Amino acid sequence: MSLTVTNALLDGERTRLRVEDGAIAKIGPRIRSRDGDEVIDADGMAIVPGLINGHTHAAMTLFRGHGDDLPLMRWLQEVIWPVEARLDDEDVYWGTRLACVEMIRTGTVRFWDMYWHAGATARAVEDAGIRARIAAPLFDLGDAAGPDGVPEMAARGFEEIGEPRELVTAALGPHSIYTVSEGALRWIGEDAAERELPIHIHLSETEDEVVSCVRDHGVRPAEYLDRLGVLGPRTVLAHGVWLDESELALVEERGATVVTNPVANLKLAVGRVFPYRAARRHEIPVGIGTDGAGSNNSLDLLQDVKFLALLQKHEARDASALPADDAWDIATGRTAPLLGASGRIAEGEPADFLLVRSDAPELAVGNFVADLVYAASGSVIDTTVVNGRVLMRDGVVEGVDEVVAKARERYTRLGLNGSR
Amino acid sequence: MSLTVTNALLDGERTRLRVEDGAIAKIGPRIRSRDGDEVIDADGMAIVPGLINGHTHAAMTLFRGHGDDLPLMRWLQEVIWPVEARLDDEDVYWGTRLACVEMIRTGTVRFWDMYWHAGATARAVEDAGIRARIAAPLFDLGDAAGPDGVPEMAARGFEEIGEPRELVTAALGPHSIYTVSEGALRWIGEDAAERELPIHIHLSETEDEVVSCVRDHGVRPAEYLDRLGVLGPRTVLAHGVWLDESELALVEERGATVVTNPVANLKLAVGRVFPYRAARRHEIPVGIGTDGAGSNNSLDLLQDVKFLALLQKHEARDASALPADDAWDIATGRTAPLLGASGRIAEGEPADFLLVRSDAPELAVGNFVADLVYAASGSVIDTTVVNGRVLMRDGVVEGVDEVVAKARERYTRLGLNGSR
Repeated sequence: MSLTVTNALLDGERTRLRVEDGAIAKIGPRIRSRDGDEVIDADGMAIVPGLINGHTHAAMTLFRGHGDDLPLMRWLQEVIWPVEARLDDEDVYWGTRLACVEMIRTGTVRFWDMYWHAGATARAVEDAGIRARIAAPLFDLGDAAGPDGVPEMAARGFEEIGEPRELVTAALGPHSIYTVSEGALRWIGEDAAERELPIHIHLSETEDEVVSCVRDHGVRPAEYLDRLGVLGPRTVLAHGVWLDESELALVEERGATVVTNPVANLKLAVGRVFPYRAARRHEIPVGIGTDGAGSNNSLDLLQDVKFLALLQKHEARDASALPADDAWDIATGRTAPLLGASGRIAEGEPADFLLVRSDAPELAVGNFVADLVYAASGSVIDTTVVNGRVLMRDGVVEGVDEVVAKARERYTRLGLNGSR
Repeated sequence: MSLTVTNALLDGERTRLRVEDGAIAKIGPRIRSRDGDEVIDADGMAIVPGLINGHTHAAMTLFRGHGDDLPLMRWLQEVIWPVEARLDDEDVYWGTRLACVEMIRTGTVRFWDMYWHAGATARAVEDAGIRARIAAPLFDLGDAAGPDGVPEMAARGFEEIGEPRELVTAALGPHSIYTVSEGALRWIGEDAAERELPIHIHLSETEDEVVSCVRDHGVRPAEYLDRLGVLGPRTVLAHGVWLDESELALVEERGATVVTNPVANLKLAVGRVFPYRAARRHEIPVGIGTDGAGSNNSLDLLQDVKFLALLQKHEARDASALPADDAWDIATGRTAPLLGASGRIAEGEPADFLLVRSDAPELAVGNFVADLVYAASGSVIDTTVVNGRVLMRDGVVEGVDEVVAKARERYTRLGLNGSR
């Protein structure tokens, strides 16, 4: 079935748009809908590209509010890891479904995920109708090391995630340089090259990670990754908070992408703000992620992109740093092609777009993009379309009540019990 | 007419609540509604105190998105002041109505305002049904100085705002120490004492202000205010970003309140984060404000309180700094009694409260207060009640379309023209 959108504002002009086979087939004021088309009258709404969440752990919605106000390592060791050990497929499935509902409601059409039970994540993503690049976490250092090593973990992950398809594709997900051995990282670099798959890794999130890397390997984290063949044009570095000038030059040279997570970095108090200006000077592709809901605790990217822009102004002590248009390009993935979206509404592009209530009070006057970045939250989004399918209409995601109820069941099963 | 709320969750327990004459008359599971009562079935909702916006310039919604990404002084001089000179009562009325809609939608029940045409603000506030403490801005230095001096400006302001009533009360609003002369500040201190009225002043927002004060008066801003009799238990200091240790001790001693505006401070890149920990150590009452929509650009306090908490964690490099419960107390005014709200749902309190959709996906699991602070935006609020009157139900504020249309008219009249 095809979809026609009428009366939508695109860059300030009223137009129509026809979707066929999951792609934007035609844009123009005189396009006709055909018999059997689903028709959306977008009167009072603007059409914009969907948002891209470049780094999250979707199922961690289940841990929202657990261990809030604890630093990273205590939060992981005392709160998260013990309960993660008890997770099963159904927990991850419903935690991810809850995350998908939240993302769809707030305009995210695609996300990059790294989490346990990756097969359950893949199933949830397909059932929700959103897009994801999914990585099973790989590690072989510390308590949690499996007996079979990283190649075996990776194989299981690929099997669980399954063959690439419209909504779901895989990545290799080495957790970090402090949880994966040198040999395994080298293997991952080779395997990714062979399979032509992206690598998604946490890098340089805390100062400790940098200090330990220099102590143990004699070089800083990006240099270490590069030495092992893991830093390339298909590598996504999540965080990159502590990258220094020489590492940024190296990241630029290798063509890797950095996904910054401004809110999670503040919340876990990692002590530094991502050096965006320097990264931009190096023309490094930069995306934005929420990180997991356990450490954010929201998945509303329109809130996070405001944090990103405002923190950069503050750090630079310059109100003109990271202006609204740049922030919007980051939020829609335009500045980081590896993440998989062009950030444009154009013929031939995948039909992943939003209809925004441009009559919402916070969007009533002013510059539309600046209003989205600085004044809006995800609640201004009326309609979310992914792969040509309408996932939200009039602010309502179908099946939300079931998802909330099931997520609460899993939460209770896990012995989590927040104060209500 | 009275109001009964049934099935509301209060601190995790289902209860009922009856409102009479604008106050919470009774709370308990067995309360009966009476004939003629308006009844709200709050099934699936939690009742919480309304939010208090301690510093804003409501009508500046009209300037949203104008001069974004400019530093404070250029923004004021090149963008804001020229257009402010053309404002009339109707502009301020509809700009304020727009602000009120946005505040009501996102749970603010009371705000402290300082803006031109204070009479129009007062009228808009009463028509919207929200509460405000309104100050006409006072100044006598620089280009804009009137011929009659500050006492005359103040008298006109009081006349415009009118006698104190349920929703509207007045304050004295000296704009700042750099726009009001020494003599006028001294007069304001005396007049406020005589009238027993609060003083609402911008203080220590930028480093320049501190440097100029030390240069011109030989003391720092809080010491200067104190010398002139302006620093007392009825004084609200907006910003206070650059207050140092000795000034904080003085503010504590005088019993003044500080309202921090974390988002506006980042956006205008003032270069420092409000020293919250030190203020708390001094037991200074602290509230939160959005500042005007021109420099935020949102009026959604649930977003701002997340900025507040996360920035403090970041600055302290301690994830436990400013935990969620403290942030919530700040947002509801509990930590700053001068702002006029107790932050509590209790018998005898004014009926200024919210019904929150506790089944919203972002509130589905975890700790309720932490979810509100870290995971929610204002869109989780279903119902806003002020002075016993229901201003929003099912997320809909009556008359919103008219307000948006009128605000757009005024915006166009002013020759403002954002790119849509």
